[in-house]
Amino acid sequence: MGAHKIRMQMKRERENAQRRFRRQKQRNVLASPGIHDLIVVLDNLKPSYNIGKIFRSAQAFGAKEVHLVGIDFFDPAPGMGAFKAVPAIFHDDFDACHTMISAKGYTPVILEPAKGGSLMDSALPQKSAFVFGHEEFGISFDPTAYKGMKRLAIPQYGAVQSLNVSIAASIVMYEYAKQHGDHQINSGSYPGQARTKEVL
Amino acid sequence: MGAHKIRMQMKRERENAQRRFRRQKQRNVLASPGIHDLIVVLDNLKPSYNIGKIFRSAQAFGAKEVHLVGIDFFDPAPGMGAFKAVPAIFHDDFDACHTMISAKGYTPVILEPAKGGSLMDSALPQKSAFVFGHEEFGISFDPTAYKGMKRLAIPQYGAVQSLNVSIAASIVMYEYAKQHGDHQINSGSYPGQARTKEVL
Repeated sequence: MGAHKIRMQMKRERENAQRRFRRQKQRNVLASPGIHDLIVVLDNLKPSYNIGKIFRSAQAFGAKEVHLVGIDFFDPAPGMGAFKAVPAIFHDDFDACHTMISAKGYTPVILEPAKGGSLMDSALPQKSAFVFGHEEFGISFDPTAYKGMKRLAIPQYGAVQSLNVSIAASIVMYEYAKQHGDHQINSGSYPGQARTKEVL
Repeated sequence: MGAHKIRMQMKRERENAQRRFRRQKQRNVLASPGIHDLIVVLDNLKPSYNIGKIFRSAQAFGAKEVHLVGIDFFDPAPGMGAFKAVPAIFHDDFDACHTMISAKGYTPVILEPAKGGSLMDSALPQKSAFVFGHEEFGISFDPTAYKGMKRLAIPQYGAVQSLNVSIAASIVMYEYAKQHGDHQINSGSYPGQARTKEVL
């Protein structure tokens, strides 16, 4: 394969990711909210694989919505179609997002490493909006500027504090479902929707 | 850049991954076990990004060891150095792994989607060895051929049963730490080891 063909192929891959994003975003208007009063807010995350993966876990744990702050593109491929399934709401900044989730009665819960209370010991509000910041720079706003925010962290036991953001978000959704959800395996299937091949 | 240069670069990247693997595997002999009686067994996982990520979470949750069955290579880069830090034990097949973990007094706990009891309601053994199978094909052995195995699943609430294996493994380690670990943030730091920049 010549250099020209390789360059064309890389360009096609970029365009395919953009097409996947546009197509799934269009179909997202038909997405139905999950069974839990659980919102995930992604505050200026990198347009990397993490966002798609968080959609996948949001679908698995029955999240109501995913809010994207300052994010206008990501490759939905790692989400295995979940970007079509979980309602996505786009905001230019956190202030707009905060206004909307507050109007819906949700409590913002910020997850930061090594700050705030332990996720393991905290009673999570019935209506929780979990906010995750940028992979390196954290959240984009000053949390003390907003009233009534909860600040939590996932306890860690290694020499390095290091959990990937898609893993941290999934653990938080698991903990929410453990506190507020039905614990039965397969409890949340929607009548009429086909159950596709299970993938661990 | 010409086709030859691009091909050379792809070859270099493959060789770099192999070099990273060999180097971290050598340094793994100096790895120290985490503070929890928690072992992770990866049974014939793809040599993809999942394995490195599971090492990263294993370090974060203080796992004692990671056992790799039928895996002779993976790119450790997504592990952020954790492959150097958490003791890794390589086995040709699950039988050899089972003999070793049983001799150490660990109970094998198989995690499979939509099978067995709910992780949320199960008391996990103090010495738990959590077994995760291939991303598509599941575990490589017949679990009824071994005595005393526990079989658990993570409850899911979407139309599709779909959690990535690195996310499922991290949730299980979180649940173990919740049941058996200290819940304090930063509880597990080792004296004398530098705490590096925290990454969520």
